[in-house]
Formats: sequence, structure tokens, C-alpha cells
Amino acid sequence: MTIFANMKKPLIFVTNDDGVGARGLQAAIGVARKFGRVVAIAPERPQSGMSHAITMYRPLYLRKVREEEDLVLYACDGMPVDCVKMAFDHLLKDERPAMAISGINHGSNSAISVIYSGTMAAAIEASFYNTLSVGFSLLDHAPDADFSGAVFYAEKIISKLFNAAVELPICLNVNIPAIPVEEIAGIRVCRQNRGYWKEEFYCRKDPRGRDYYWLTGDFYNMEPEATDTDEWALANNYVSIVPVQADLTNHSRIDKLKGVIKL
Amino acid sequence: MTIFANMKKPLIFVTNDDGVGARGLQAAIGVARKFGRVVAIAPERPQSGMSHAITMYRPLYLRKVREEEDLVLYACDGMPVDCVKMAFDHLLKDERPAMAISGINHGSNSAISVIYSGTMAAAIEASFYNTLSVGFSLLDHAPDADFSGAVFYAEKIISKLFNAAVELPICLNVNIPAIPVEEIAGIRVCRQNRGYWKEEFYCRKDPRGRDYYWLTGDFYNMEPEATDTDEWALANNYVSIVPVQADLTNHSRIDKLKGVIKL
Repeated sequence: MTIFANMKKPLIFVTNDDGVGARGLQAAIGVARKFGRVVAIAPERPQSGMSHAITMYRPLYLRKVREEEDLVLYACDGMPVDCVKMAFDHLLKDERPAMAISGINHGSNSAISVIYSGTMAAAIEASFYNTLSVGFSLLDHAPDADFSGAVFYAEKIISKLFNAAVELPICLNVNIPAIPVEEIAGIRVCRQNRGYWKEEFYCRKDPRGRDYYWLTGDFYNMEPEATDTDEWALANNYVSIVPVQADLTNHSRIDKLKGVIKL
Repeated sequence: MTIFANMKKPLIFVTNDDGVGARGLQAAIGVARKFGRVVAIAPERPQSGMSHAITMYRPLYLRKVREEEDLVLYACDGMPVDCVKMAFDHLLKDERPAMAISGINHGSNSAISVIYSGTMAAAIEASFYNTLSVGFSLLDHAPDADFSGAVFYAEKIISKLFNAAVELPICLNVNIPAIPVEEIAGIRVCRQNRGYWKEEFYCRKDPRGRDYYWLTGDFYNMEPEATDTDEWALANNYVSIVPVQADLTNHSRIDKLKGVIKL
């Protein structure tokens, strides 16, 4: 793809939550390089499930990992949202990136998983800086997952977004089925499926006889019949795209609540 | 207050993000005890800014800190959302609490701070279990902050919610000005103010000559003229209540995005 070959190449920021060593990060950098110059800051260590956490009680270090033509990769010993703040308010404060890519995550971030996800928190944080911001997740947790379908669709989606010059800021949660690219049925724009994770704690005894607990759970789908959700799209072999935002206000409850509080 | 004196006392869950030693937790427990039996699980250590993070890479320990009539207090060496999961899916799985109280937080969780807040993440997580769920925050970070106004309004708000038997689940973000209770102008139900935190990194050199960075920032209010937001209410000496939810879908962008993706 050479759509920017004759233009000043745009600056693209890349991050993830699986850490600087993850294959999904390399896949995302590969996609980003097709569209411009790339600055990546990824966490030193895996930070799955770190959501929108920020580091408040200790300082952060930034380490240059690799530098080559149109690419600089750093590692930061914080969490995904720290990486984004470090990029936009420190490293890149003189040249705002045209786009932020987070991922490609090893594992799904559909439905309610979006609020636990460090990948999506990073994408949401980047959108506060008025960027085109996209988090990509492949439905395969394996360290050696096959990212070819995810890369194909990530390039396709970014091309469409750039060409359409979508209104900024925008933040998208893109999930990609873990199947061969030719079996993917297409792309669906959808809404976040309602549901929650019900945990089952594994209780074990440590060598000193103390109980300890591993958090583990299953997703409970509260609307299995809906056909306009990300869960439906993924179950039917589509790539799902959910536009996301950070206003948590439940507007539908405001009026009634005003009545309750007045009493 | 004795509204439940002659009833089977309801079970109330309490947590926070400032940790088991915080005075705000004791204030919340004091409020909760007026309404029922209390089980509290708080983080062993301060977890401000930990958002909806969960502990995936190590197991969790649970320690009983205190037990007295109608109160048991535990510490968990995880994050706020871990505490909620530990309560609802392990410790209290045979008796669902009627209510969850998170806080009282030392410091504001208004506007966009709601998405970084461990206090509010815990409240949101508890609401997934179909509870009446409220996060309380006092606009004072000091460890020895005066919680008397916050306690007064927390009791008042919980009374109103219980008496009105509000539809479940519901999750509320309550912020309380740090002023004497008699100067508080009342309670306002409002929406989350738009805005973001712009960071300024303090760069210093460690004893080995390496740069390190402290994350520090200022809130940038994107709608200073609005009068229906939590920022407005707090600036005008009102207690603010924002009903919150975990659907991040930006519904307003779906239709246009469908057009972009089709091209």
C-alpha cells in the first residue's frame, strides 16, 4: 500500500498492553508503517487487564529499544495509559500524531471486556488528544497467534478511515475473529454487547498454609438474541467495530433520580 | 438513624481505593452501619488511579482485619475491582448485598476523573451484580481530611435511595465539596463534565544518571459555561450526583461509521 508515498508521511503512535515483546505489537507496527512514520511506546511488561490505570506513586522510566528509518520504539515501565500520556504530553508534544493504534491485542476486547482492557484504555486516552484512535484485538490469547487476518483487516479499516477523513476525535474498538482471513465474513459496525464476567476463584494453599485465590471467570451474555452487537458479529465471523467514548453518564436515569433526591 | 431497627438488617458491602488504613474507609463503614450489617473488603495498600484494573498474573490473599457486631473488615492485596469480585463471587456469594458503598475517596472523582478512579471502578463493578451501588468522594486529598460533611450527605442520599426503592442496577458517582456542612448548598443530579487531564512530566535524574519522570497534570474543562455538569455543581458548593454506566458505545457515531466502512 503506497497511498502516502508522495506525501509528507503522517506521524502514527503505536502502543499496546501485552508489552514491548509481544508479537501483536510488531504486527501493529507493521500496519502503522504502511501509513507513515511510527513512534511506539509500549509497556516493559505485560499489562493485560490494567484498564485505565495510571502510575501515581512512583516515577516512570523510558527506554529506547530500537530506531530505524521512520520508526522509533520505546519501552516504558508503566501501564498502557502511562505510555499514551508519555507520548502525547512529553515525547511528541511538538508534533501531534495523526493517528493512534493500540494492539494488536492477544485476546478479545469485545462486550464488557472493553472496560478491563489496557489496550482499549490506551486507545481511549489517545482520543482525548483529538486523534483518530483505534484499538485492535485478535480473538486468540496465544503468544504465537496468527495475526495475518488481523493485519489484513487493520490495514483495510485504517485506509477507509484515512480516506473518509472522519470527524475527530474518534475512538474505535475493533475485534477480529481468530480464523483464516478468507473465512472472515466482512466488517460490522455495532454496539457493545451487554453482559458481565462472573468469577470463579481457584483457592489453593501456599507452602505456609495460607489460602490464596486465582481470579478466573466466564463471560455471561445478557442479550444473546441481539444481532446488532459486537458479540453477535464475532460469533458470525465478522470483524466488529464499536465506536467508544469516555462519558460514563447514564443519561436515561437523570430525570427520575432528580425526583428521588428532591423527596 | 434507625430506619432499619425493626427489620432484618440489610447486608451492605463497603470498599475503597485508598486502602484499608484510610480514614475515608472508616467514614464509609460508619455510614453503612447505620443502614445494616457491613462486610468490607479494602485493598491492603493505596490504589488510587487504578481504574478498572484486575489482577491477572498473580493470586490474591484475603486477610481478616477486624470483626465486631454486624461488621467484618478484610484486606485484599489486590486492586479495588479485585475486592469487589472477591466479595460478590466468593465471600458473599450466598447472600447478595443490598447495597455497595465505595469510598469515601480522599479527592475528587468528578468529570473525566471517573475513568481513572479505583473508587468508581469498584462501584461500577458492584453494580454488575444488580446492586444499588454508590461511590462517594470528598474534594480533599489530605489523609486527615474532615469527612463530617461527606458523612452527613452520604447518609442523606442513601436514605433517599433506600426509601425510593430505585430500579436496580444503579450506580452513582457522588462528589462532595470540602467545605463545612452548613455551607453546602444542596444536592444536584447532573451529567459528567467533558474535559481531560493534560500532563506535565517532572523529569529528574536518578543517582545513576538516568532520567525518570513523575506524572502530574491539570484538568482542562472543555465546557466551563455548562450549568448541568458535576464540575458546575461542585464549583457552586453543591454535592454532585452523576448516574454512571459501563456501556462505552458512542451511539451517535454508529450510522456515519457504517457509511465509511461500506466504501
